[in-house]
Amino acid sequence: MMKGVYSVLPTPFTPGGEIDVPSFKRVIDLYIRAGVDGLTASGVTSETARLSDAERLSMLEAVMAHVNKRVPVVIGASTEGLRTCIELSKKAKALGAAAVMISPPRMPKLNSEAVVRHFRSVAAAIDIPIIIQDYPPVSGFTMEASLLVRIARELPSVRTIKLEDAPTPYKIARVLERADGLTIGIFGGLGGTYLLEELMAGATGAMTGFAVPEILVNVVRLFHAGERERAAEAFYCNVALMRFEFQEGIGMAIRKEILRRRGVIAHAGIRPPGTPLEASTQKGLDSLLNWFLQQNTEIKWTLD
Amino acid sequence: MMKGVYSVLPTPFTPGGEIDVPSFKRVIDLYIRAGVDGLTASGVTSETARLSDAERLSMLEAVMAHVNKRVPVVIGASTEGLRTCIELSKKAKALGAAAVMISPPRMPKLNSEAVVRHFRSVAAAIDIPIIIQDYPPVSGFTMEASLLVRIARELPSVRTIKLEDAPTPYKIARVLERADGLTIGIFGGLGGTYLLEELMAGATGAMTGFAVPEILVNVVRLFHAGERERAAEAFYCNVALMRFEFQEGIGMAIRKEILRRRGVIAHAGIRPPGTPLEASTQKGLDSLLNWFLQQNTEIKWTLD
Amino acid sequence: MMKGVYSVLPTPFTPGGEIDVPSFKRVIDLYIRAGVDGLTASGVTSETARLSDAERLSMLEAVMAHVNKRVPVVIGASTEGLRTCIELSKKAKALGAAAVMISPPRMPKLNSEAVVRHFRSVAAAIDIPIIIQDYPPVSGFTMEASLLVRIARELPSVRTIKLEDAPTPYKIARVLERADGLTIGIFGGLGGTYLLEELMAGATGAMTGFAVPEILVNVVRLFHAGERERAAEAFYCNVALMRFEFQEGIGMAIRKEILRRRGVIAHAGIRPPGTPLEASTQKGLDSLLNWFLQQNTEIKWTLD
Amino acid sequence: MMKGVYSVLPTPFTPGGEIDVPSFKRVIDLYIRAGVDGLTASGVTSETARLSDAERLSMLEAVMAHVNKRVPVVIGASTEGLRTCIELSKKAKALGAAAVMISPPRMPKLNSEAVVRHFRSVAAAIDIPIIIQDYPPVSGFTMEASLLVRIARELPSVRTIKLEDAPTPYKIARVLERADGLTIGIFGGLGGTYLLEELMAGATGAMTGFAVPEILVNVVRLFHAGERERAAEAFYCNVALMRFEFQEGIGMAIRKEILRRRGVIAHAGIRPPGTPLEASTQKGLDSLLNWFLQQNTEIKWTLD
Repeated sequence: MMKGVYSVLPTPFTPGGEIDVPSFKRVIDLYIRAGVDGLTASGVTSETARLSDAERLSMLEAVMAHVNKRVPVVIGASTEGLRTCIELSKKAKALGAAAVMISPPRMPKLNSEAVVRHFRSVAAAIDIPIIIQDYPPVSGFTMEASLLVRIARELPSVRTIKLEDAPTPYKIARVLERADGLTIGIFGGLGGTYLLEELMAGATGAMTGFAVPEILVNVVRLFHAGERERAAEAFYCNVALMRFEFQEGIGMAIRKEILRRRGVIAHAGIRPPGTPLEASTQKGLDSLLNWFLQQNTEIKWTLD
Repeated sequence: MMKGVYSVLPTPFTPGGEIDVPSFKRVIDLYIRAGVDGLTASGVTSETARLSDAERLSMLEAVMAHVNKRVPVVIGASTEGLRTCIELSKKAKALGAAAVMISPPRMPKLNSEAVVRHFRSVAAAIDIPIIIQDYPPVSGFTMEASLLVRIARELPSVRTIKLEDAPTPYKIARVLERADGLTIGIFGGLGGTYLLEELMAGATGAMTGFAVPEILVNVVRLFHAGERERAAEAFYCNVALMRFEFQEGIGMAIRKEILRRRGVIAHAGIRPPGTPLEASTQKGLDSLLNWFLQQNTEIKWTLD
Repeated sequence: MMKGVYSVLPTPFTPGGEIDVPSFKRVIDLYIRAGVDGLTASGVTSETARLSDAERLSMLEAVMAHVNKRVPVVIGASTEGLRTCIELSKKAKALGAAAVMISPPRMPKLNSEAVVRHFRSVAAAIDIPIIIQDYPPVSGFTMEASLLVRIARELPSVRTIKLEDAPTPYKIARVLERADGLTIGIFGGLGGTYLLEELMAGATGAMTGFAVPEILVNVVRLFHAGERERAAEAFYCNVALMRFEFQEGIGMAIRKEILRRRGVIAHAGIRPPGTPLEASTQKGLDSLLNWFLQQNTEIKWTLD
Repeated sequence: MMKGVYSVLPTPFTPGGEIDVPSFKRVIDLYIRAGVDGLTASGVTSETARLSDAERLSMLEAVMAHVNKRVPVVIGASTEGLRTCIELSKKAKALGAAAVMISPPRMPKLNSEAVVRHFRSVAAAIDIPIIIQDYPPVSGFTMEASLLVRIARELPSVRTIKLEDAPTPYKIARVLERADGLTIGIFGGLGGTYLLEELMAGATGAMTGFAVPEILVNVVRLFHAGERERAAEAFYCNVALMRFEFQEGIGMAIRKEILRRRGVIAHAGIRPPGTPLEASTQKGLDSLLNWFLQQNTEIKWTLD
């Protein structure tokens, strides 16, 4: 069962809009140094939908080469068609992925039976674990707890969920109730904004791209070590930043700006039509980071 | 222009599901003691949609009588039809409301022109201020900044917005940019989860039902007094609780439970089909309140 | 099991926006003369959402008095709260309703378990049949075939569905497959636009407000009499009109205009914010009715 | 200004799921023989979302080679990112496309300003006409009439709309009202189900993949020749088939099956997770085609 903290990688771009490989490598190194248990490449927040197939592949190759087995890497392989999803999953395996992460395919009138068929077909085609991504705003489909457990029961390689259907602690509790002893790994996401409550409800870790993974690692380690009060202290004080980063529509721009201020990515730009950072968000971030750095003396970064 | 903190009132119920008037009065008193600038009755989180028309009216009468002009009261008057909306707005005025709050009417294929007509018709029918409620998940319609400013320009009595279309600080900045000097009052909402950033972006206050309004009042007063660092300190440390309360689908159950633990409402139940509090949420709340009470020694409540 | 054609009643208004009772009576008489098997009052297309509770009730009383048991009447009793839904269902029974029709309650984060609980609670509170309205655009929730069958299996009084989740013939086939012999009555809706295919898939009738119910009655009778080719002939030639009437957002305005031209309602207006009929739609309707009346010599109405 | 009938090409597959080029060529020939004014490749119903980038490109090359300038070809170039959209548009131009068709980019929190920027950026990068695809169920964004006209006014190369936001005749009338003399080309779509009414409202043609384009061509030609009654006769009698084909979620499977029965594509399969044809839909189609062939003696096809 997969667990711990997996950081979802952003895709840094040059001012001209090309993938910025040196920045990419620095992000990877920062995340690994932060002590994460693994990395996730080609996630939703990696701006994957704005890359061509060729860019997606070359980016994945660069990631795998630079990580060089220091930590396991999950590769996002969601596509709207089954055939392209299987192709991509096979490439992911060939590249050395520890697992692929797959969302229900986006489609009008999708239903539970079609979702089961989709995962069954992918599971039959590859022999590495599949993580179900449960994020309805992107897939357009809500998988109820009973469906997630049904898939896990039927398909032994599909027993980990990146569960991002709010309220997440509540839903995690529902999934584990129904699992009735079957081991299911559950990663929280949503920028870490409910990490502690997710762990309390039975999550085995967090998979998100929050720009200060040191905090996530700290909370998860303390929690898993049974130090619940210290985990809580470490979480409640810091969730103000996670909450700010995790704003709909502008979250990726904020995340990249924090990573830029941390000195790892050269340029915070996102690909259009993504909404770029503007003055009011910058001001909110300035204020928060000033306060935050006073609280967290062990985390250092370069401010402009 | 309306500003400051307006607390949206919950509707407490007896175990049998009747409106619990004594609890209602205690909630009102707690909010007024907390120093709020006004109250809002019959909002979305007042479970208004689960009341009959007769209950809604008798509840409003009870609120107005108990408040007894200690603070201004805004009355939510959204309905799906124009005619019922005007009727309700007139009743609100007759009851002494300082303003009514109205959402775009829920309707398939609604568009901007129909929204303008709706507010124009209501504004023509009543002579108290109208607050636009901008909460797309409930109305099903997104009002762009340009539409909100257009309405404010055309209708002098419709120049306050309860703005809850995330990311709210970003949208507030867009509205004020376009307002180009026209005075528009903007209340943040969303349980207070972005209160500080909303104020920084130009919001004039907050209108939400967060169960510890003392915190909202403190942040807004410090901010308006120019004490921005102290406002920030007061906000960032406490937003963990607002975030927890403001969970989709279960937020009202959490809010009522906090109010119950504060000793003001007798029973935390919500009307079905609302999701009641269950064990995993209770545990998350226990942990958070333990920590929170250590931070906020001035706020007292009764724990079970 | 309920079957045949049930016509959903519109709510005619006077130019001043009051409920127009004389027109109402003429509509009822037209539908009964057309040979419908029953009527449905207070449906979605009855503009119920734009009536006050008091209007809804007085309208229902007027309907029941005028129908005077000539045909069975189904009363729509959907509300967002369980308590108000039960109250309304009890009133419906007291008024003599043959059944109530209920939609899943509109609520953020609704799920299958909550839907089952809702129907279970209503079924426990009343002793007349409950028809499930399955129209996701209004309820905001999609009930999969397995859920509909689960409810029918558990609750003997909830074994009729007004199924309007497109593609309807496909879904009817799925429901009946899973029903595995359990008798479930299924009414098609959607303005009759897929009536023949719904009957072929196993529907037991149609429940819709199409302004020329004579056609629906004719198709259903021929089909049930085993005259499939004649039913097909009667349907394919006429579906052009049903399709035109059944336009999103403007369908009710068209339906009322046809009823006005048929001489039964005095005024075609709908309550704001509903979109009124405008010139381009009038022209389309003129053209279609001209052609249609040439095809259907047995159906007479007054043209302007 | 573009006008007339443009047929959107399906993508036929072999039983093994590969693109079936010989079938593809036969479809193209059928459409051209039917007298269409142009073809559209890589539309939504071309199952484009289920092709890899490489397949999409090789399919486009095959189309352009086989059409060989017999009719103009529009190429769908919608992608979620601006950069990939421009790249694809440039390839389309290089391949000889008469125009590209582009949808607002799918993105959470998209707004009108971002849509304008998107079209402005694409228009600046290519020098062939751009057709706006206005189909909210796929783009997730509703463009109001005022926005469509604003884009047309600002960008001379973006003055054609494939308008599929129901009710389409109503919206076409709204766009032309606001256009106030500016020439805007409008194609109806939606499988042709409102073709006549769209033409009456001012549409300049139809762009859809309906499997019997002969009918669309006939209606449009008669209408443009001023033979409105004959156009109406040709439309109303045949819309039963368009309506049946245009069913949500299963429409492509029906369309391919009709093309298979017409003898042009070898295999009607669609790529998973698309819903394949099942028995109840087959039966509905059998019945309809039997009737239809009796009405339309000039259209011939091979029945199984």
